[in-house]
Amino acid sequence: MFNGTKELALEPLFHYGDLRRKSTKANGFAGQDILSVSQFDRESLAYVFARAHEMRQMVETIGYADLLKGYVLACLFYEPSTRTSASFIAAMERLGGSVIPITQGVQFSSVAKGETLADTVRTLEQYADVIVLRHPEIGSARIAADYAGVPVINAGDGAGEHPTQALLDLFTIQEELGAIDGLKIAMVGDLRYGRTVHSLTKLLTLYDVSLRFVSPEILRLPLVLMNEVKDAGLDVRETHDVADVIETADVLYVTRVQKERFTDLAQYEEVKGYYEITAELMQRAKPKMIVMHPLPRVGEIHYAVDSDPRAAYFRQVRNGMYIRMALLAMVLGKA
Amino acid sequence: MFNGTKELALEPLFHYGDLRRKSTKANGFAGQDILSVSQFDRESLAYVFARAHEMRQMVETIGYADLLKGYVLACLFYEPSTRTSASFIAAMERLGGSVIPITQGVQFSSVAKGETLADTVRTLEQYADVIVLRHPEIGSARIAADYAGVPVINAGDGAGEHPTQALLDLFTIQEELGAIDGLKIAMVGDLRYGRTVHSLTKLLTLYDVSLRFVSPEILRLPLVLMNEVKDAGLDVRETHDVADVIETADVLYVTRVQKERFTDLAQYEEVKGYYEITAELMQRAKPKMIVMHPLPRVGEIHYAVDSDPRAAYFRQVRNGMYIRMALLAMVLGKA
Amino acid sequence: MFNGTKELALEPLFHYGDLRRKSTKANGFAGQDILSVSQFDRESLAYVFARAHEMRQMVETIGYADLLKGYVLACLFYEPSTRTSASFIAAMERLGGSVIPITQGVQFSSVAKGETLADTVRTLEQYADVIVLRHPEIGSARIAADYAGVPVINAGDGAGEHPTQALLDLFTIQEELGAIDGLKIAMVGDLRYGRTVHSLTKLLTLYDVSLRFVSPEILRLPLVLMNEVKDAGLDVRETHDVADVIETADVLYVTRVQKERFTDLAQYEEVKGYYEITAELMQRAKPKMIVMHPLPRVGEIHYAVDSDPRAAYFRQVRNGMYIRMALLAMVLGKA
Repeated sequence: MFNGTKELALEPLFHYGDLRRKSTKANGFAGQDILSVSQFDRESLAYVFARAHEMRQMVETIGYADLLKGYVLACLFYEPSTRTSASFIAAMERLGGSVIPITQGVQFSSVAKGETLADTVRTLEQYADVIVLRHPEIGSARIAADYAGVPVINAGDGAGEHPTQALLDLFTIQEELGAIDGLKIAMVGDLRYGRTVHSLTKLLTLYDVSLRFVSPEILRLPLVLMNEVKDAGLDVRETHDVADVIETADVLYVTRVQKERFTDLAQYEEVKGYYEITAELMQRAKPKMIVMHPLPRVGEIHYAVDSDPRAAYFRQVRNGMYIRMALLAMVLGKA
Repeated sequence: MFNGTKELALEPLFHYGDLRRKSTKANGFAGQDILSVSQFDRESLAYVFARAHEMRQMVETIGYADLLKGYVLACLFYEPSTRTSASFIAAMERLGGSVIPITQGVQFSSVAKGETLADTVRTLEQYADVIVLRHPEIGSARIAADYAGVPVINAGDGAGEHPTQALLDLFTIQEELGAIDGLKIAMVGDLRYGRTVHSLTKLLTLYDVSLRFVSPEILRLPLVLMNEVKDAGLDVRETHDVADVIETADVLYVTRVQKERFTDLAQYEEVKGYYEITAELMQRAKPKMIVMHPLPRVGEIHYAVDSDPRAAYFRQVRNGMYIRMALLAMVLGKA
Repeated sequence: MFNGTKELALEPLFHYGDLRRKSTKANGFAGQDILSVSQFDRESLAYVFARAHEMRQMVETIGYADLLKGYVLACLFYEPSTRTSASFIAAMERLGGSVIPITQGVQFSSVAKGETLADTVRTLEQYADVIVLRHPEIGSARIAADYAGVPVINAGDGAGEHPTQALLDLFTIQEELGAIDGLKIAMVGDLRYGRTVHSLTKLLTLYDVSLRFVSPEILRLPLVLMNEVKDAGLDVRETHDVADVIETADVLYVTRVQKERFTDLAQYEEVKGYYEITAELMQRAKPKMIVMHPLPRVGEIHYAVDSDPRAAYFRQVRNGMYIRMALLAMVLGKA
């Protein structure tokens, strides 16, 4: 037994006026889920990018802000993704918020006991103000959002979407080159299975750009997506060799050609060089252009390219933090 | 070698008056461990619940407070429990405190090197102001508390206790129904092995309630606990079918009947329906009553019940955060 | 689509003057990496210890400070080490900073995809202001530091170094006994493989101390290190039995003699008692001396010794937090 509890005075712990945590929709994003790139149009993208740019300025000058002080993010990762979870955690912390990191072992705990995603999400929303979800199954983010009373941000649902990656890719193009309209953008590598390529391509149909798709025959862009691009009236061409686009591209978006995709390894050995970015290749590129990559890379961009000022892939990583800071602030009604 | 260290001026980093971190016992809880429900009587429970209610009001209005700013919680989980660790982490963060999350891999690190729990705890108390411990072995929380110089909160020690769960259960009854005395409370499902049922039942012997125990024959409440209930002079009955209590119960506390408990699966199939809460069953329940569940659930409460305002199990989850906020503040001498 | 985004007013989120995050080298440590004990001389050690002592005073009185508010630490552990990661996390949090805890699963995520350490570090520096690295391979911390644009602190690189451990060991001697010069320091146990012994011994060559090395024949200090000690002109002797030094030692630094090191187990059984610290043995020690251990221990210091005021090993753990607080503040240019 605790001693002396009878004598405990019950002075109120907190004193506050009529200050209320508001759930008002201060703007079009407050209280919303971020599930798919198809939620965005040019106006909303411009708004997100303006906020992300402010975040960049803030971090580069004062380093952090107290905008989300007292807010709690549940970072729910059913599969590990160091890069993405670290980015969201840093984004929340740089805005003064707190994080419940559930980036390991979900599968060994509640899920092992047979709990559904819906129940897990309805549990976490009792603790947190916003949920970031990574899940191996397509459509899982939608399910989570349907059940959660707090905003859900999709951080990748299997073969589905990973919208914040597409947003940071597009934001990087704008930050690096000043605008998106008028650019010639080349996608290089695995265009068939590359989720980041698909999402970015969808967003680019909202702009007046020329697209070049550079891939092996068996890894060409899916027909349905190619038709979307054509329906949008964009100038588009396909080729097998990055050398065909290196001299004119404003953006080179590189992804990995995985050996495992080829049944004929001799074929892989024959073509892989067409999709490797070397320092020699970069000598033929425009002086003002950028090389991007969603990372991690495994040889498809040579290390010698890293010191080239046009190598934008690590700045692209940093932009991911700014985009996530903007989105967190926005869905929490603070931006 | 670092350059210029000889010239380093050693200006004092911190300036402070005689403000001291106090270890005074400001109330009966400051500096105490929370190990078992048997530590609590009606007075101390009333005090905890009053504080937890304040936490609820604070979170519902301003969202967070700086009450525990600068305090560090070591969250030491030898087995994963997403729900419980997330609840404690959120509780600490919403009061402005920080967390050392050791919710994975303890077994692969110090413990693998043969360190005892006593030494692990004496190490962590060097870093943290309070320790929350989850451990698979009964009695482990007591050992940790014996060695630690900082308060230890038991977050489950195997088949032993999980006192914060029992507190949040009882707090939920009071918050939802206004009082505990005078209620008819039915426990449903696995009453033999269910740790939460046992702890809550013990707490309820402090109140003037009627208890109904609804279970299969092989999962009846242990005799020793039933005797405690009877010794307390409570009105108590046992039955095999939830239908027997649905019309009169103020509280339906549901737990899962696990198939694995039955040697005769035909018997399981025969009786399992007696312990499932369906929307049809709820039509016969009182208009003002609540359904509770420690979660996770696997079918024993149908999803169709979730939209019923009497379904209190997710509010119960939220109350867990409030109870843990109250306890953390109290053992740290701040409430 | 988000509704009403067209009408979104874009008020600036942040207002600030010309306050800038400075990367100026305010002292010899700002912006530096902490990779090896060989970076330190007596002046820089004195500076670190003075700062760590301030941290101790601050924690013992007010508990925390806001010195690193807004700064983010990436805690990147490729192998689990509960003790070390908890110490760094607590250090950062007690100074008001935030942590990205990557203490599990790195190997299952980016690394599994074939990412190099260089790329992982260049990714994390986009999010964090300082990186603490634990990695199983010798030299990994050096590689990380070469690529990172933010300070890297080596928290152990395999058989390489673990400099913060050596600093906390030496700091403990100074805090406990007031000075280092003039002391007789005995290292006991596995002196051949013990990384902590090697690093501490190197630091001690900067001081005027007498060294006693107590080990089984097969676990004697490596010759190259013994030569360093002799070159430094220190009074040094080797022995096989701790009884030979117990009456004169000011410091007993104990490490474990692992059974696995012996091919002849009979030999192990014969000698192991020479390296165990018992309460009886302590009766022969000086009244003012200390027993240290890097922990975890497994029997080499008996539990009965723990209550002896000369048992300094848990205070040594606490000093680790103070040293890490000092180093974090210093490399971030805040001390």
